[in-house]
Amino acid sequence: MPSMRAAIFVEPGRIVLGEKPIPDVGPLDALLRITTTTICGTDVHILKGEYPVAKGLTIGHEPVGIIEKLGSAVQGYREGQRVIAGAITPSGHSAACLCGCGSQDGGFNASGFKAMGGWRFGNTIDGCQAEYVLVPDAMTNLCPVPEELTDEQVLMCPDIMSTGFSGAESGGIRIGDTVAVFAQGPIGLCATAGAKLAGATTVIGVDSIPGRLEMARRCGADLTVNYKEVDPVEEILRLTDGRGVDVAIEALGTQSTFGAALRVLRPGGTLSSLGVYSTDLTIPLGAFAAGLGDHKIVTTLCPGGKERMRRLMNVIQSGRVDLKPMVTHRFKLDEIEAAYELFSHQRDGVLKVAITP
Amino acid sequence: MPSMRAAIFVEPGRIVLGEKPIPDVGPLDALLRITTTTICGTDVHILKGEYPVAKGLTIGHEPVGIIEKLGSAVQGYREGQRVIAGAITPSGHSAACLCGCGSQDGGFNASGFKAMGGWRFGNTIDGCQAEYVLVPDAMTNLCPVPEELTDEQVLMCPDIMSTGFSGAESGGIRIGDTVAVFAQGPIGLCATAGAKLAGATTVIGVDSIPGRLEMARRCGADLTVNYKEVDPVEEILRLTDGRGVDVAIEALGTQSTFGAALRVLRPGGTLSSLGVYSTDLTIPLGAFAAGLGDHKIVTTLCPGGKERMRRLMNVIQSGRVDLKPMVTHRFKLDEIEAAYELFSHQRDGVLKVAITP
Amino acid sequence: MPSMRAAIFVEPGRIVLGEKPIPDVGPLDALLRITTTTICGTDVHILKGEYPVAKGLTIGHEPVGIIEKLGSAVQGYREGQRVIAGAITPSGHSAACLCGCGSQDGGFNASGFKAMGGWRFGNTIDGCQAEYVLVPDAMTNLCPVPEELTDEQVLMCPDIMSTGFSGAESGGIRIGDTVAVFAQGPIGLCATAGAKLAGATTVIGVDSIPGRLEMARRCGADLTVNYKEVDPVEEILRLTDGRGVDVAIEALGTQSTFGAALRVLRPGGTLSSLGVYSTDLTIPLGAFAAGLGDHKIVTTLCPGGKERMRRLMNVIQSGRVDLKPMVTHRFKLDEIEAAYELFSHQRDGVLKVAITP
Amino acid sequence: MPSMRAAIFVEPGRIVLGEKPIPDVGPLDALLRITTTTICGTDVHILKGEYPVAKGLTIGHEPVGIIEKLGSAVQGYREGQRVIAGAITPSGHSAACLCGCGSQDGGFNASGFKAMGGWRFGNTIDGCQAEYVLVPDAMTNLCPVPEELTDEQVLMCPDIMSTGFSGAESGGIRIGDTVAVFAQGPIGLCATAGAKLAGATTVIGVDSIPGRLEMARRCGADLTVNYKEVDPVEEILRLTDGRGVDVAIEALGTQSTFGAALRVLRPGGTLSSLGVYSTDLTIPLGAFAAGLGDHKIVTTLCPGGKERMRRLMNVIQSGRVDLKPMVTHRFKLDEIEAAYELFSHQRDGVLKVAITP
Repeated sequence: MPSMRAAIFVEPGRIVLGEKPIPDVGPLDALLRITTTTICGTDVHILKGEYPVAKGLTIGHEPVGIIEKLGSAVQGYREGQRVIAGAITPSGHSAACLCGCGSQDGGFNASGFKAMGGWRFGNTIDGCQAEYVLVPDAMTNLCPVPEELTDEQVLMCPDIMSTGFSGAESGGIRIGDTVAVFAQGPIGLCATAGAKLAGATTVIGVDSIPGRLEMARRCGADLTVNYKEVDPVEEILRLTDGRGVDVAIEALGTQSTFGAALRVLRPGGTLSSLGVYSTDLTIPLGAFAAGLGDHKIVTTLCPGGKERMRRLMNVIQSGRVDLKPMVTHRFKLDEIEAAYELFSHQRDGVLKVAITP
Repeated sequence: MPSMRAAIFVEPGRIVLGEKPIPDVGPLDALLRITTTTICGTDVHILKGEYPVAKGLTIGHEPVGIIEKLGSAVQGYREGQRVIAGAITPSGHSAACLCGCGSQDGGFNASGFKAMGGWRFGNTIDGCQAEYVLVPDAMTNLCPVPEELTDEQVLMCPDIMSTGFSGAESGGIRIGDTVAVFAQGPIGLCATAGAKLAGATTVIGVDSIPGRLEMARRCGADLTVNYKEVDPVEEILRLTDGRGVDVAIEALGTQSTFGAALRVLRPGGTLSSLGVYSTDLTIPLGAFAAGLGDHKIVTTLCPGGKERMRRLMNVIQSGRVDLKPMVTHRFKLDEIEAAYELFSHQRDGVLKVAITP
Repeated sequence: MPSMRAAIFVEPGRIVLGEKPIPDVGPLDALLRITTTTICGTDVHILKGEYPVAKGLTIGHEPVGIIEKLGSAVQGYREGQRVIAGAITPSGHSAACLCGCGSQDGGFNASGFKAMGGWRFGNTIDGCQAEYVLVPDAMTNLCPVPEELTDEQVLMCPDIMSTGFSGAESGGIRIGDTVAVFAQGPIGLCATAGAKLAGATTVIGVDSIPGRLEMARRCGADLTVNYKEVDPVEEILRLTDGRGVDVAIEALGTQSTFGAALRVLRPGGTLSSLGVYSTDLTIPLGAFAAGLGDHKIVTTLCPGGKERMRRLMNVIQSGRVDLKPMVTHRFKLDEIEAAYELFSHQRDGVLKVAITP
Repeated sequence: MPSMRAAIFVEPGRIVLGEKPIPDVGPLDALLRITTTTICGTDVHILKGEYPVAKGLTIGHEPVGIIEKLGSAVQGYREGQRVIAGAITPSGHSAACLCGCGSQDGGFNASGFKAMGGWRFGNTIDGCQAEYVLVPDAMTNLCPVPEELTDEQVLMCPDIMSTGFSGAESGGIRIGDTVAVFAQGPIGLCATAGAKLAGATTVIGVDSIPGRLEMARRCGADLTVNYKEVDPVEEILRLTDGRGVDVAIEALGTQSTFGAALRVLRPGGTLSSLGVYSTDLTIPLGAFAAGLGDHKIVTTLCPGGKERMRRLMNVIQSGRVDLKPMVTHRFKLDEIEAAYELFSHQRDGVLKVAITP
């Protein structure tokens, strides 16, 4: 049985490059030969043991690759095609998919409907930081990459761009809205770009790192707020003449950004939450108007599926946004341990890394 | 200057019947002679000093009455008409109104956009537990009562029915949904009726008082859960085969019901919150799927305005729901202190009282 | 190769009972042994040659049956289960499915995106008026029938009920709406039931056959209009005090009903169209307010998929609607030519027939 | 009684500059001294007698001006403020307004709910092509102009920009959509700008005049189609690989553009219609998929009200779009007959004219 190299979770604190067999291809699967992938903040949570996965699992959920082999029941593709698949791989046929909530695929079990069931790569099945990855439900998930686009141009589509844009979309942004985006890491930057693209005419990016605030302006922020220099809630209320924002996007996953997002929200506004939280959250009574402010709090898990990927690549192709500058560092798969070292410590102004087997 | 009797907030713990001048009628106002009104749970919060209002204010926000006098600029009505107005009286011309959020009327001030600004009766202006009440922005708020309907039949429209139904509406209930309604007081009962009316096919009412659970079944609950007898979260998951509910409506305003509502929600489901909270709220991490469950939390303040009232009275007239049984006790305005005594202690199975001047 | 009996389209004017091989089961398919099916108005269009299908095709798209054999890649079911599938069988994995429009499955071809591509049974593949039918994309389409429900109770779910209810759903009916439903054949009756279930408080059913108007009242119509006795447009405007209706549902497929539906619509209202038209349609300028009336015209093709079927069966199980009375006649499969004879001429007050192999 | 100059409709074919008394100010009104206004295509319909208005009416519905006098009941403004009002002036208090459909203000009359009732300036009351105009329901309609913006920068807000953008908004454009806009006159150009602003990533502008196609590209069209050079339906299907467009915007008001918009629409797509039609319309059966294509046809009348104006001026102020280039010609009010002459014959590449009293 031929083998391949893969970034394997060994135990908390250790993701190492190892050898694994190249997987067999089931009837609905496709085997991809990975050409480019990347590391996500969630992978760092896994590395640190903050998000539990099985020992021995291959990590990574952002694939760009070439179809090596198609399952016997897979139609509509050909081997050799360059494709991407979303970080979330809905089956297409689950109840969750059929009620428009494919990210929550996974069906029922003894303890109830399973949240996040659509996230499989590097979570419940082997992931993409490897020479090959098996894509389940290939017909639902594989999307051909237009020739004009490079691997790096589409590398953000599977997760960062899909998640960040969904923050704008779930927020229901309308033409002329004022939007604040809390945190300008990769997801926050994509949320900033998405908010502008959706018609917001005042986009306020919040962070503390000057390089990220600069990137926020490149991605579409009209105004930026450095929360180490000013109180971000007071500053945003000042910038909006006391009106507050129509939509606040949380893109970090902390109580502090969640609370601030609620505090700057106008009555009737929407808090669109993207962060992965690690503790219970507190809703401050006053900012919540005691429950009488017609507020909405919405959360979104990265939308997947081939049609989502097609649309995101369309956006890239249209030139409306350019996410290539977010790839700040490049590594060979052989160097992935160094890539984790750099990325997990946010050294050298890293935003995203490109990994090429 | 002629005077009238009114229920006046004197200080925390004391609402007394006193005398006040009958108010002058401004150009956009209408003076109503109250024929029937009621007491709301919010009034009890005011009585207890939990919700602050100005001393000397007339309490009450649920008017049924006869137009006594119209302001000089008011057109489209005639004196002597029997009308209702919503508890919330949007102006019609504010920015909040014009962006579809009239309950949050009130515009800007130094400390920002003011939540709940549309609630004026018995909050920022004199209310309805009196012989007369001045209705501001009369053309936006007054709705004639169809002859066929009695005062008591429409007495729930201004607040309880509008609020309860909005819990179902804001929850986005669709035909075939499963809905749990936490607490079966007057608002919860209306939410139960609204959920059924909106197409939910499994409505689960939760409370601990047998009389309220019985009333819940009359209002449309298919199933009821007595939280003193079983753990309501476990029971609802059991009743839904572990699937959880599509929409959970919170109709009390406590951490306990808020948390339970989130715990029974399926991924992608909506928590529609109606309660008035008195403390910060906690979102439990697990039930919230760490922010990745595609959940929505929406809050709604009682929708007002004459068109809302017309629609609610249509519902009554159609016979789809009958809220008259919710009026369990009747008092003269002169006896309003006794009515507060009964209602605030929830004696004698009281749901709502009718007060007639 | 074992064979089975099937109702086969031979040529315009002739659907005959013939013999066909029992089909082979592909990896994603399921073979159902039909226990009950029915004839649809669309089948009559096929019979008459008004809707072209291939000669030799088995007709019918409303299956209730027992799983006889599952494809090799199908999981989550077991042979012997009683199931239904929708008339429309979305694949689950097409672009159309993934953008929430599964009825329009079918992808692209030289002449563009193919409308109605999701309708396969008795249209592009062999249908259900047979002893056996092959269900494509079984995991997306098969839905187990609750034990408590009989075949006849769920026989309307695959098409009539799903289509009729979608008229109410696509119309965006809200609590308190006034709705007119033009034509009270099986689909119109289900639209009437759906409109009531969705919260309409005045539902007006229009037809000319007294038996159908009587059935309309049983299904939820508050008022009925016999268009042979009065001008339906004038009468509906009269019944609504000149206001018009919020939503008008067209359930026949003629210019006359389409035009009338537009004429009774209030400004800002929605015409929800279900009918299958056979000629170009005319939009009357005045009723359309020259394009300035904020009107919407929406069309819907019967939603399919197992989750839709589950929800519809939930509705039946809840007792909110009872569609059994719509089955007015029963035939053996051997008698299907007689069934077509009766149904296509609408003899003997027929609404729907049950066919049992 | 002081008098003023005004452009008066005398009879079909004749709009002349005449004298009229400056109107009295009612309690809810404001008197504006017009500083800039313009001529609309609708005014040309009036001139030609194609749209009937009362003889003696002052024409025009696009005001920029200074508050000269406020009605006695008007609060929140001061005389001397520079303001705009929308072409449509909703009252704020009508049933139509309160159900979110303010453009259809106007209530009921013997012949039913009146479409277009919200359009009053130069239709049912004196308009803006004059030295002064009386704004009804001033508190709902007057919006202060930010100091940084010139009259010409905001001159498109009252009608053209509000209408054009609404074509994109009512079409429900989402990030990544492909949109075709039929006709690139002033409204079509604004629809093109609005489509891009709302997130469309492929915007296709259709017209036959090279100057307008050039302007379409400046406003945001990615591609343009000259319908005199190619068949626009075939070309758009070719440009979209046979897929069709997600949203087609009709911005002219003819059968030809309406039909083409439907023909290029994908199944499940939306035709957003802005044009004012002058004949019955035909829906071609094939393009409409016999009513089974899940298509939507939506029409929108220019949204008005001060909050709409504030948002549109926000868009201008953000620099997202620049509509100043649309003002191609300037006239004094004294020269308005010449302005009509030029504009109605579309001479000299005219798009919009600015008229200054």
